[in-house]
Amino acid sequence: MIMEGILPLAPMEKILKKGSPDIRVSEPAKAELRVLLEEHGEKIGRAAAKFALHAGRKTIKEEDVRLAAKSKLE
Amino acid sequence: MIMEGILPLAPMEKILKKGSPDIRVSEPAKAELRVLLEEHGEKIGRAAAKFALHAGRKTIKEEDVRLAAKSKLE
Repeated sequence: MIMEGILPLAPMEKILKKGSPDIRVSEPAKAELRVLLEEHGEKIGRAAAKFALHAGRKTIKEEDVRLAAKSKLE
Repeated sequence: MIMEGILPLAPMEKILKKGSPDIRVSEPAKAELRVLLEEHGEKIGRAAAKFALHAGRKTIKEEDVRLAAKSKLE
């Protein structure tokens, strides 16, 4: 089932084919990658927001996103 | 620096703000999340392509993407 998402579906094919230009990609595979990337991004976002607030800011900066990606925090 | 990417930049803000609607997001933070999500997706894509070929297919299916996300393979 293709769910509504925040990210567009079309670039998922390009991302999945990046290392293997000759491979084909099914529509549900694209939809699955979109779900996974949004979940991954939201997890990073939750941690990044905590790091921003912890630093006394109301704005998520690049350094918060970097730290969030490296942390195990959610 | 805002690099060219496969994913659009605008949805990165929505993803980062998902759990904290009142937080703001800097432009470099969005660009950083885009880089991270594309890297994460390409890693999944490389593993998914291997799983598809391993199963005798030329098409990445949903199950390859799921398995790739759970595997440590790249």
